[in-house]
Amino acid sequence: MTSADTNAPADGAPTRPLTTAQLAERAGVSIATVSKVVNGRAEVAAETREIVEALIRRHGYRRQKKASGPAPMLELIFHELAGPYPAEIVKGVQRVAWEHSLAVAVAVAEPGPQSPRQSWIESVLARRPTGVIAVFSALTDAQVTQLHTRDIPLVLLDPVQDSTQDCPVVGASNWSGGMSATRHLLDLGHRRIAAITGPPHSLASRARLDGYRAALDMHGAPVDDALVRVGDFYAETGLAHTRDLLRLPDPPTAVVACNDGTALGVYRAAAEAGLRVPDDLSVVGFDDLFPSSWLTPPLTTVRQPLTEMAATAATMAITVAQGNPLAQKRVELTTELVVRGSTSAPTAP
Amino acid sequence: MTSADTNAPADGAPTRPLTTAQLAERAGVSIATVSKVVNGRAEVAAETREIVEALIRRHGYRRQKKASGPAPMLELIFHELAGPYPAEIVKGVQRVAWEHSLAVAVAVAEPGPQSPRQSWIESVLARRPTGVIAVFSALTDAQVTQLHTRDIPLVLLDPVQDSTQDCPVVGASNWSGGMSATRHLLDLGHRRIAAITGPPHSLASRARLDGYRAALDMHGAPVDDALVRVGDFYAETGLAHTRDLLRLPDPPTAVVACNDGTALGVYRAAAEAGLRVPDDLSVVGFDDLFPSSWLTPPLTTVRQPLTEMAATAATMAITVAQGNPLAQKRVELTTELVVRGSTSAPTAP
Repeated sequence: MTSADTNAPADGAPTRPLTTAQLAERAGVSIATVSKVVNGRAEVAAETREIVEALIRRHGYRRQKKASGPAPMLELIFHELAGPYPAEIVKGVQRVAWEHSLAVAVAVAEPGPQSPRQSWIESVLARRPTGVIAVFSALTDAQVTQLHTRDIPLVLLDPVQDSTQDCPVVGASNWSGGMSATRHLLDLGHRRIAAITGPPHSLASRARLDGYRAALDMHGAPVDDALVRVGDFYAETGLAHTRDLLRLPDPPTAVVACNDGTALGVYRAAAEAGLRVPDDLSVVGFDDLFPSSWLTPPLTTVRQPLTEMAATAATMAITVAQGNPLAQKRVELTTELVVRGSTSAPTAP
Repeated sequence: MTSADTNAPADGAPTRPLTTAQLAERAGVSIATVSKVVNGRAEVAAETREIVEALIRRHGYRRQKKASGPAPMLELIFHELAGPYPAEIVKGVQRVAWEHSLAVAVAVAEPGPQSPRQSWIESVLARRPTGVIAVFSALTDAQVTQLHTRDIPLVLLDPVQDSTQDCPVVGASNWSGGMSATRHLLDLGHRRIAAITGPPHSLASRARLDGYRAALDMHGAPVDDALVRVGDFYAETGLAHTRDLLRLPDPPTAVVACNDGTALGVYRAAAEAGLRVPDDLSVVGFDDLFPSSWLTPPLTTVRQPLTEMAATAATMAITVAQGNPLAQKRVELTTELVVRGSTSAPTAP
């Protein structure tokens, strides 16, 4: 025996039987390897097998409730498949799913009239996946109940609306992100700072806007409602609002865009008006998705750790599926301001 | 009876029993609806049911071979999950899969040392999906054989290398695309036209480069090997090559970038050198992925119909799974030059 961890715990307390994940952690091997050992499959080195078997002999083995469920997969439901956002999410889920020998299925909530959302939930119930992760997507209470009564865990990632539904939720620190973006502009000397929000039902967008307001308020700068525009996360709307903002008698010298897509529209409006970014107009985005760092100038933005958020959601879904308690039901991962070339001090008027 | 199509064929010839897809087409309803009818499920309008039943009575019904296979899903394997490319592909596969009541699973060939490719193929064999679509990904001959012997259809989408493997392939008209991009620049009056390719093993990239060479040749313009650079589809490499190209004694006035990501690097190098796009340097990309139309200036590029290519690959996989012959084993969808703001006539020297 080479692993010290196969000895009894130092405090001598009796231990609960270990799950596959716990066995993997203690043995220092992958979950897939532990799975092979407990299922008596051949392709594991003898020494590794012995370490795992010793752990099982000492502590016992607790089979996951859903280990032999009908569809060993995590199912992701997106509201839309477009741009670089889905790839970041799938990558994070994939990473965790792989460790648990789960496939990753991807569906779209509303790809068109052929696919009403209720048909999707019926197909999920038929498949009975290990867990469902709903991305930026609002399930109805009835749908949540359908999943719950079938014992299919549901985790909400970046949910669009607050919910009375008792589901685990993963998001980012959007309020702090909105505040740090705005404070960055205030620190550079800007006072006329516009905000273009996401859609009104997006919780993330609301939190970002509240962070913007808080930064202005803490700085003793009044919020000018004429500078706050309701957007929808799309570049077209960022373009339209910025055109309008630049026509104001006292136009903004900086714009906080509630996502990187919106910032693309701000760039376009500035170019149309013959304004240079950042000399004539500073711009901050939100997300840090490709190709924000490759724009001209590179976009200053608030990085949202989408892949980590997705991995966290996947881990939570699996934890619930295994019948284990969650340490936290609401997790907020940290956002981070990334300063690049699209922000500078305002030019003296 | 309302549908004329439920009558006997005009030529009176005997007909083969119809598949679900054929029934759906003739009845003018979705495949899901036909499925519900043939499986005796309730939620179909009486009139619709009667139309489908009449067709079945007249022509017979041929159940798909794999209708009750172990995992009713299409499985997509990507070489990498990043940027907007995967979302376009998943969207196309999803659209077709939905019509056939199939889930869509997504995997990555090499997400890291935890996930060697052979483990992926083993997990696929365990799941036995309806079909596998490999995107920009080279399966080994052994892996192709593993799928083939298990009767799991494999379709290659945008394959990275030519293959002796007898698999159906979907791609785009890359050669024509490379030629039309280059001809566009020649027509504008450019003579010093550089090309930055994708990785050498990419068939798509080779075809695009050959199109570039053909356009120059047909125009009587010699190919200058100093202007042809081997890239890898990433912006960093586009930046490095363009920096170098701009330092040549007789620098190019235009660059054909083998994808939009590379074009981002060309834009950056131009900005660094104080050159304006398109006034001082024209740029053409390839793909037309988000946010190419939102760059400053908007990118002239060759549109590749990725979603349609993915939908075609999905349809081919399902056709093979149903035991039906493919009309073509190699399909090339049309590319199209989209002229935007990044190309103009060269400035007189």
